Amino acid sequence: MTSPRHASSHPSTALLTDHYELTMVQAARHSGTAERRSVFELFPRRLPEGRRYGVVAGVGRALDALESFRFDAPAIAALEGVVSADMLEWLASYRFTGDVWGYPEGEVYLPHSPLLVVEGSFAEAVLLETVLLSIYNHDSAIASAASRMVLAAGGRPCIEMGSRRTHEQAAVAAARAAYVAGFDATSNLAARQLHGVPSTGTAAHSFTLLHDSESEAFTAQVETLGVGTTLLVDTYDVREAVRLAVEVAGTGLGAVRLDSGDLGLVAREVREQLDQLGASATRIVVTSDLDEHAIAALAAAPVDAYGVGTQLVTGSGHPTCGFVYKLVAREGDDGEMVSVAKRSTDKASIGGRKYALRRRSALGVAQAEVVGIGTAPEDDGDDRALLVPLVEGGVVVGREPLDAARARHRAALAELPRAVTMMSAGEPVVPTVFEGS
Amino acid sequence: MTSPRHASSHPSTALLTDHYELTMVQAARHSGTAERRSVFELFPRRLPEGRRYGVVAGVGRALDALESFRFDAPAIAALEGVVSADMLEWLASYRFTGDVWGYPEGEVYLPHSPLLVVEGSFAEAVLLETVLLSIYNHDSAIASAASRMVLAAGGRPCIEMGSRRTHEQAAVAAARAAYVAGFDATSNLAARQLHGVPSTGTAAHSFTLLHDSESEAFTAQVETLGVGTTLLVDTYDVREAVRLAVEVAGTGLGAVRLDSGDLGLVAREVREQLDQLGASATRIVVTSDLDEHAIAALAAAPVDAYGVGTQLVTGSGHPTCGFVYKLVAREGDDGEMVSVAKRSTDKASIGGRKYALRRRSALGVAQAEVVGIGTAPEDDGDDRALLVPLVEGGVVVGREPLDAARARHRAALAELPRAVTMMSAGEPVVPTVFEGS
Repeated sequence: MTSPRHASSHPSTALLTDHYELTMVQAARHSGTAERRSVFELFPRRLPEGRRYGVVAGVGRALDALESFRFDAPAIAALEGVVSADMLEWLASYRFTGDVWGYPEGEVYLPHSPLLVVEGSFAEAVLLETVLLSIYNHDSAIASAASRMVLAAGGRPCIEMGSRRTHEQAAVAAARAAYVAGFDATSNLAARQLHGVPSTGTAAHSFTLLHDSESEAFTAQVETLGVGTTLLVDTYDVREAVRLAVEVAGTGLGAVRLDSGDLGLVAREVREQLDQLGASATRIVVTSDLDEHAIAALAAAPVDAYGVGTQLVTGSGHPTCGFVYKLVAREGDDGEMVSVAKRSTDKASIGGRKYALRRRSALGVAQAEVVGIGTAPEDDGDDRALLVPLVEGGVVVGREPLDAARARHRAALAELPRAVTMMSAGEPVVPTVFEGS
Repeated sequence: MTSPRHASSHPSTALLTDHYELTMVQAARHSGTAERRSVFELFPRRLPEGRRYGVVAGVGRALDALESFRFDAPAIAALEGVVSADMLEWLASYRFTGDVWGYPEGEVYLPHSPLLVVEGSFAEAVLLETVLLSIYNHDSAIASAASRMVLAAGGRPCIEMGSRRTHEQAAVAAARAAYVAGFDATSNLAARQLHGVPSTGTAAHSFTLLHDSESEAFTAQVETLGVGTTLLVDTYDVREAVRLAVEVAGTGLGAVRLDSGDLGLVAREVREQLDQLGASATRIVVTSDLDEHAIAALAAAPVDAYGVGTQLVTGSGHPTCGFVYKLVAREGDDGEMVSVAKRSTDKASIGGRKYALRRRSALGVAQAEVVGIGTAPEDDGDDRALLVPLVEGGVVVGREPLDAARARHRAALAELPRAVTMMSAGEPVVPTVFEGS
């Protein structure tokens, strides 16, 4: 399902970076602190309001971005005037040589889950801040929304079709993230090309309107794409279109799509009509501004698949996760590691290197997110460690097929308490517990 | 300020497209309708709830994407199994040969403004749907939010620093769109490289925490970047940090940045302290989850610049514009053009080719958005036509420097009624009026 990506053929990601990362490194080189061993942590201070869990996505893309994080000649040229000539020289030979551990893709996260632990010199690790946060904040926001939609759909397939409502490259990443979280397919062809996500599609109203009659449009589509195709039946009159669809395609018609009106009501009418026409195996696909709540509200309606657009690619009210990337420990004057943290009242962080495991009951039900500060929390016997090696000495070791992430998400969801399926706003499904210093 | 982009050096945009666009064209080729002359329109059905106007952005990027919309060998390979061999051959030689008119970049829009009018064969025009909508929906959402923030800032500079909160490529487009809408600079280095947006930056808490003392951090920054730099003063204790900042940099210190706490309150205390220390020219930059309302609430506080992140890159509550791309007219059997529109109750469209002008009073104040259906509305003498040629016979003719778009937005805002500066929710600042059939 996935095709591996190779850094060599990919454009540089080095300028997907905030200006200040570079000037900070220049100043740290001046003060002799740039090479201090440092530990950065990427984590959420909280979940978006009302959400009970989040989903880690973007890990594979972040590893690709890290491999392509080299300041090539055009990048160096663009940085003239931003940093000194000496700094430009340093940047030209930059590559990350440190280590990264993280939650693997598809894993569930909770407040303060240490999603990434990046260890290296300050200079090499701080430069990755912006691009890592961009990828994690976006992809995890989409996956977190997608996962709730998949739960709400209760086993009915969900199709991602939101490309047109978000930035053209964000659309590709959104399709990938939704697939990790359990969506079955995407409309996005680049996601098919780059990430191996299955692509699918029906037809637009413009296709019907292009033809002199709905009958000619349906006939063209069925003759070209086969009777298994999905016909869009709400351009003019739904009842007449359904009749025509079965007349043209026969009772073996794959599906009809509804994209307007009271979807539950219309789906019931269409189901009844299809059954009366003998097309009892013809499925009903619904689209039209669906989110997890609209999907849940259609649970009792005869709907066979959901196409989700805008609300998916915009994170269903939470287009970003609010992950931050903070220095939590660094080498001191004496070469020993020192825990560090900002002290301000409303944005305080917890210093120190973090470890994490999911505490589980003997029955395998998650009970807590245990975050160890400074030392790894002890496994009670039924627990599950959450951090895996992603990069060792600058070499990516954590790459995996996208289907592995998809399977992991299914498994991680299955071990959560049943409250996870509640669509109402509420507290995190399990509490976060800190252990250690 | 801008560097022109050349399609030849850019990757193909052809797969940033929904699966169904291709299968529709295949079916239309089968029915003999693919070459029917067609007019598509990209437009908003409404403004986001409570917004009084929108800002067109992404025009230049859309023209670049159109030029790079070619199905190269890897794209064709990825489409095997999606469409027929015959269709793949057609795609391989695809290029858009039609005409496009549109609102130029930076222009204000209102409900039903015909932002793009795309004329060509059905096949060539429908294929552009997804990528055009992606770019317009994203970039205009950011510009629309940015414009309100700039108005709320009342002349104080606004700096875009939200890259880490959105997809890494969306971040670059967001920086560009914010600049069009009046932001002064960005933190994003790729936006500097690709679009010539001025970049700037301060320092992060990690830089202070890296050093053994705040004094050492400030000294390193000032010695490296000069006294004109901006020192971050809320890592430990703001009052002590401000004292130290002036001690280290002298009274010529460029600025201090506040990133937490009650910004208005703290800014007043810091202003007083800076003045007492003789640093009366030292500016105060504030950041921390600002949106247009928070910016407006700081109008009376001694703040000199706003750094805006999350709320900007997520469109301040409206991450997408909801633009749609609809077939409004197409050639009939007899070669004459026929107006077409979907008939469903909740998503009906208005058929027919559109024209538009902004009706203005003799004093040059905008009074209405006049949309002509089928024919161009008449200019009363003080009006302003809104559609300009962007593509002629497949050749891009509407490219312009980014600063031209920025200047246009300033001018377009200036002619709107004064209610445009209201941050409260309300009706569109001028009504949309339809003329013609």
